[in-house]
Amino acid sequence: MLDRRHFMQSLLAVASLATLPAATANAATGPSVSGAPETPAGGTPATPRTTQAPGFFRLPVGGVTVFALFDAHGKLDPAILHGADRKDIDALLEDAGIPAGQPATSNVNCFLLDAGTRRVLMDTGAGAFFGTRGGYLPENLRAAGYTPGGIDHVLLSHLHPDHALGLVDAAGARVFPNAGVHVSAPELDYWTSDATLAAAPEGRKAGLLALRKALAPYRDAGRLHTFAPGAAPLADVPLVTSVDLPGHTPGHCGFRVTSGGAALLFWADIIHSTPVQFARPEVSIDFDVDQKAAVATRLRLLPQVAAEDCWVAGSHLPFPGLGRVRARNGGKGGYAWLPVNYADGL
Amino acid sequence: MLDRRHFMQSLLAVASLATLPAATANAATGPSVSGAPETPAGGTPATPRTTQAPGFFRLPVGGVTVFALFDAHGKLDPAILHGADRKDIDALLEDAGIPAGQPATSNVNCFLLDAGTRRVLMDTGAGAFFGTRGGYLPENLRAAGYTPGGIDHVLLSHLHPDHALGLVDAAGARVFPNAGVHVSAPELDYWTSDATLAAAPEGRKAGLLALRKALAPYRDAGRLHTFAPGAAPLADVPLVTSVDLPGHTPGHCGFRVTSGGAALLFWADIIHSTPVQFARPEVSIDFDVDQKAAVATRLRLLPQVAAEDCWVAGSHLPFPGLGRVRARNGGKGGYAWLPVNYADGL
Repeated sequence: MLDRRHFMQSLLAVASLATLPAATANAATGPSVSGAPETPAGGTPATPRTTQAPGFFRLPVGGVTVFALFDAHGKLDPAILHGADRKDIDALLEDAGIPAGQPATSNVNCFLLDAGTRRVLMDTGAGAFFGTRGGYLPENLRAAGYTPGGIDHVLLSHLHPDHALGLVDAAGARVFPNAGVHVSAPELDYWTSDATLAAAPEGRKAGLLALRKALAPYRDAGRLHTFAPGAAPLADVPLVTSVDLPGHTPGHCGFRVTSGGAALLFWADIIHSTPVQFARPEVSIDFDVDQKAAVATRLRLLPQVAAEDCWVAGSHLPFPGLGRVRARNGGKGGYAWLPVNYADGL
Repeated sequence: MLDRRHFMQSLLAVASLATLPAATANAATGPSVSGAPETPAGGTPATPRTTQAPGFFRLPVGGVTVFALFDAHGKLDPAILHGADRKDIDALLEDAGIPAGQPATSNVNCFLLDAGTRRVLMDTGAGAFFGTRGGYLPENLRAAGYTPGGIDHVLLSHLHPDHALGLVDAAGARVFPNAGVHVSAPELDYWTSDATLAAAPEGRKAGLLALRKALAPYRDAGRLHTFAPGAAPLADVPLVTSVDLPGHTPGHCGFRVTSGGAALLFWADIIHSTPVQFARPEVSIDFDVDQKAAVATRLRLLPQVAAEDCWVAGSHLPFPGLGRVRARNGGKGGYAWLPVNYADGL
């Protein structure tokens, strides 16, 4: 046992590496850490942070960069999950440290693709819809060094309020004045058709009108565009293709980014409950317009992304919502979510 | 099913809330998101971020604040885990999305307690020991709005290199010139005694001397102090107590912060493999000086923190290394790690 017990002692022996150039590289690039009188980097006095760290996370994907951007948070009540025995759902939640019946924290994440000459935002968050629980996207976009006015394209996975209402501010003005907005044709048709509005109960008409109001200024500016699910929606950013993922909503689409042999799939609302739906993809949620179709899409997609081992970006996975999907026991044991590590973005 | 299928439509009906003050509070406090000509907050031009987001994470604990600070990353080879069948260990790793035999990314986290009048750093990271894979603590401390010179106390959980060698820079100077350094008496005795040095094989002497060199400038300045495991180490910060957690090293200690009815335990190296050791606390690791004692300490501690449901801060849990421990099936199914959510720090 001596060799194991003293493993760390032997590591200590390598501490002399500290005098080699490789070992000091970080000290050279980082701020000064000497014991000299304190002169903070940049000459500005240090001010203790009284708010959370900026809500962005950087991930290189081949030759481009994707940023996760935090927009909102809420609670997910497990009672709205369906398709498995309640005790199985409770057991999966308990395995993840969530006591039975207790709601789990849920996030709304958006994603920015910096493709060099073009900046593409994937979904816009909830805007003012969630009150103080949401609408963080613009400030986190700025924290990552971008501006709403610098966005060239907005891709919308679907038109639920937590994805689309961030298009406009509380006054109804465009948040992304220089962007074209792109949504799949069936999705736009479903949520904005006069037939849907006419058939909706009175209590739902206001919501449908709110969505129209969020889209209107872009349409009026000639900046609202549709694409066919599966098509490449952006002529000037060919490394992005849409992926037809219907069920959650009729025209729900993911967006796939490929660069330098690497790939990332923004799959939007394929998973709402991380502890339950990776292990049991047949579990659906009240938010799905067509729960059966949503299950079929999830059952088809998970083995594909597990086999490819690409990066996945999810709207409602815990922020930053980036990671990889792995099959358990060849998929017979469901799937695992392996979250990105902070170091993956260094 | 109509009421469920159209749940989101009914949510859309609430979008008119956007005109209420509560719903616009975030827009009011955040940067402008209007469609007006772009004037970034602060008047500075936006510069796309080319490095990872700052490696800090804020968590209020009662009336004080704790920051997780990223220091280093590496790989953990599952072959150095012991105490369960290899196939059980592989199955737990597969459940977490880590293929058999593949190393998992590991982090080194430090934690800062801002207790108002005093700033207390818990562990110092690897310094130059890990080369470019480590030594990020000082820059992340600054990103959180603090300076190394503003640290009043450094608490060391133990004296392994990835916890203690960040005390000094590559030139051997104190990184925290105004701080007292506090370590448990048995820990200091074990790693710095002449008997340990004399008994060490030649290849390990250099490492023990490197630790002495990291401690020396603090000792020379009269700023190296010891405490008895379990004692409150800081007379001027009584809300911190040490917790005797022996095994990993002879004097390994945690630090407990209590404020306003809330509590956080920094437990240092109680868990190295998140997927394996929460589920199977009887699994030890080569890094433990006394693996049997380390297992006994873990088996004793986990039910305590699960019953209390306090915040836990871990050195090698995925950054930010903050979360809660929950018992599965009353502890018969081991324990679950529920990571903090970004929104918990808002």
